[in-house]
Amino acid sequence: MSADARVPAAEARDRIRRFQERLRHEGVELALVRQNADLAYLAGTVQDAHLLVPARGTPLFLVRRCLDRARRESPLERIAPLAGLSRLPGILRNEGWDDVRTLGLEMDVLPARLYLHYSREVWPEAEVRDVTPLLRELRAVKSPWEVDCIRGAAAQAAEAVAAVPGVLRPGMTELELAAEVEARLRRRGHPGFFRMRGWNQEIGMGQILSGPAGAVPAWTQTPAGGEGPGPAFGQGASFRRIGRNEPVSVDIGGWDRGYLCDQTRMFVAGRLPRDLRAAFEAVRRLLEDLAARLRPGAVCGDLYRLAVETMEAAGLGDHFMGSGAERVPFVGHGLGLEVDELPLLCRDNPARLAPGMVVAVEPKLIFPGRGLVGLEDTFLVTETGAEVLTTAPREVIEV
Amino acid sequence: MSADARVPAAEARDRIRRFQERLRHEGVELALVRQNADLAYLAGTVQDAHLLVPARGTPLFLVRRCLDRARRESPLERIAPLAGLSRLPGILRNEGWDDVRTLGLEMDVLPARLYLHYSREVWPEAEVRDVTPLLRELRAVKSPWEVDCIRGAAAQAAEAVAAVPGVLRPGMTELELAAEVEARLRRRGHPGFFRMRGWNQEIGMGQILSGPAGAVPAWTQTPAGGEGPGPAFGQGASFRRIGRNEPVSVDIGGWDRGYLCDQTRMFVAGRLPRDLRAAFEAVRRLLEDLAARLRPGAVCGDLYRLAVETMEAAGLGDHFMGSGAERVPFVGHGLGLEVDELPLLCRDNPARLAPGMVVAVEPKLIFPGRGLVGLEDTFLVTETGAEVLTTAPREVIEV
Repeated sequence: MSADARVPAAEARDRIRRFQERLRHEGVELALVRQNADLAYLAGTVQDAHLLVPARGTPLFLVRRCLDRARRESPLERIAPLAGLSRLPGILRNEGWDDVRTLGLEMDVLPARLYLHYSREVWPEAEVRDVTPLLRELRAVKSPWEVDCIRGAAAQAAEAVAAVPGVLRPGMTELELAAEVEARLRRRGHPGFFRMRGWNQEIGMGQILSGPAGAVPAWTQTPAGGEGPGPAFGQGASFRRIGRNEPVSVDIGGWDRGYLCDQTRMFVAGRLPRDLRAAFEAVRRLLEDLAARLRPGAVCGDLYRLAVETMEAAGLGDHFMGSGAERVPFVGHGLGLEVDELPLLCRDNPARLAPGMVVAVEPKLIFPGRGLVGLEDTFLVTETGAEVLTTAPREVIEV
Repeated sequence: MSADARVPAAEARDRIRRFQERLRHEGVELALVRQNADLAYLAGTVQDAHLLVPARGTPLFLVRRCLDRARRESPLERIAPLAGLSRLPGILRNEGWDDVRTLGLEMDVLPARLYLHYSREVWPEAEVRDVTPLLRELRAVKSPWEVDCIRGAAAQAAEAVAAVPGVLRPGMTELELAAEVEARLRRRGHPGFFRMRGWNQEIGMGQILSGPAGAVPAWTQTPAGGEGPGPAFGQGASFRRIGRNEPVSVDIGGWDRGYLCDQTRMFVAGRLPRDLRAAFEAVRRLLEDLAARLRPGAVCGDLYRLAVETMEAAGLGDHFMGSGAERVPFVGHGLGLEVDELPLLCRDNPARLAPGMVVAVEPKLIFPGRGLVGLEDTFLVTETGAEVLTTAPREVIEV
């Protein structure tokens, strides 16, 4: 990680400027931003704070906790204390922001109780608009600085995954393997979990799964899942002992200055059975085919349909991205400050890729009772195609 | 962890029964429960699901993902698929739950967009009540099975912390020490982070802080904080190298069957300066004094006031639970499935302790530029007093 992990001031100004352009375009007079990842994006720091962004003028960052850190970490010009929610109306009156007609809120993440407070008590006359789609679309296109962060995350993940062959042995539990890999990420600065925007979505540093556990679905929006340590957290590594000759998927992400990468590689203690090896080769060809089509203008839903059709033609359609009733209808997802960003390479999505988007493509096949075989790489969409950011060779590593 | 991590069926029935009693008492006809920790509590499993609990009758657990796991893990009697939100009204009509007058929702955690969907589209005639206070009060009193889980978590934490003296050396970074401690928790089944109910509150497996970093506040509701790996996640262990003769606080929690403990112990590579050692002794006496007063009927706010007055009398009031403008007004918190449960030993809180409550008491002193000195133990309130569940000796370990 670089010595100064702060968002460069020029970049922060640009983010605000582009957000304000979108607010004006949508006719939103004032946006109140509160969620951690959105604050990291627009304020350059995560605090207990209210970021008020008018469609025109200078944003005001009202910090309840911690003001000194906000001043040290944020490139925003106007940073002031907020002693409590009850002080908000007075500040708004002083700014002339108390009688806006259209107010933007993050409606997918803002808790109901806070939504009612803002919409009934603070701005009772305002029409509330959901600014989450604006924020998610803005954040989907990464700057060179953001891509540099994601490259840093990819280097961190590569280092952690390179340790697997020296650690993996049959008889160890999934959790023991996860502990080894994750400790390497942690030493390099990973906070310990992926940030996810979706409500009730939770994940640690990834999912390390072996044999049949790789085919167990979980509640989160992932093709894999895993048993996890128990019903209260039924995903990811479990106490299951890794056997010989069964697939071990290592799906993890590094972290640098807030930004994530996402990568899946396959390992096996022994040799992968011939049919699973063939399935892996089909997945690898599909990933290469998809990578070649990641370019500006490509339609997200078309990429998903191509993946489904390719796997069906290979006789693997029943295994693609889940099995039975438990499937996920996507083959890739954006990522950055959160692991569930736009664009989503999902069924019927008419959205088009654009330069600067970063997307994890993760074709995976699920074989009930046997396991998961798949790959995942994080790509940057460039003007002319796509560049892969996660650089480990796409091989099954036999130990 | 025990072989079967499921909530016992009799216990699950009892939880539902007590929740229904409270719903009837509050005049709520039907509650819709969706948040992960509340589902873990009432359904015994975390799924993408709607749990409908009528004030009278049998609850219905509608599972969008994953139905098979819900049937395997949950002790509830009625479990059915929910193909999508659009199917909900039809199911409600069949159950006679479509025209309830009072509907209970988790208003502190339910996102605004979902709240509006339920209150405008699904139950447009219902008056919405916030059932979070009911759920939090129910969950504050633990059963013997839950206490057994927390004991398991405490054993896990004790094992991890016992490794610190063998690992700590001056010159290593906070993150390197954290990686070692956390890997031990992870091997034993910790999912990798604390669940927190408060919106925008996030934490990994704890906060391991050294010297001046221990005195840096963070946005979360903790007396400590720390620099963290950067402004996008400004809490917990950082790249700072641990020096000689400075306090190192290891604030971590174990995990067993969904339940957490919380514990803080102090270490030092070398010797703790005399004044910080004296501060530690004052904190230890305060913790012992508070522990002796943790009994049924004790008023939470009184315990906090006692702590403040004791520290003021010792000349340490300016350092208690923060410094300068950044303080937290509590000295302890409940915990279980989440780390921010009731009861809260906070300023002016008239709530009283009751048998079965589990509370982490964490008197901490912050010395800007020098660090944090404190202790934390998790206690069970019994009929006659309190039993400490975290059992490591309350010593500063000099390495």
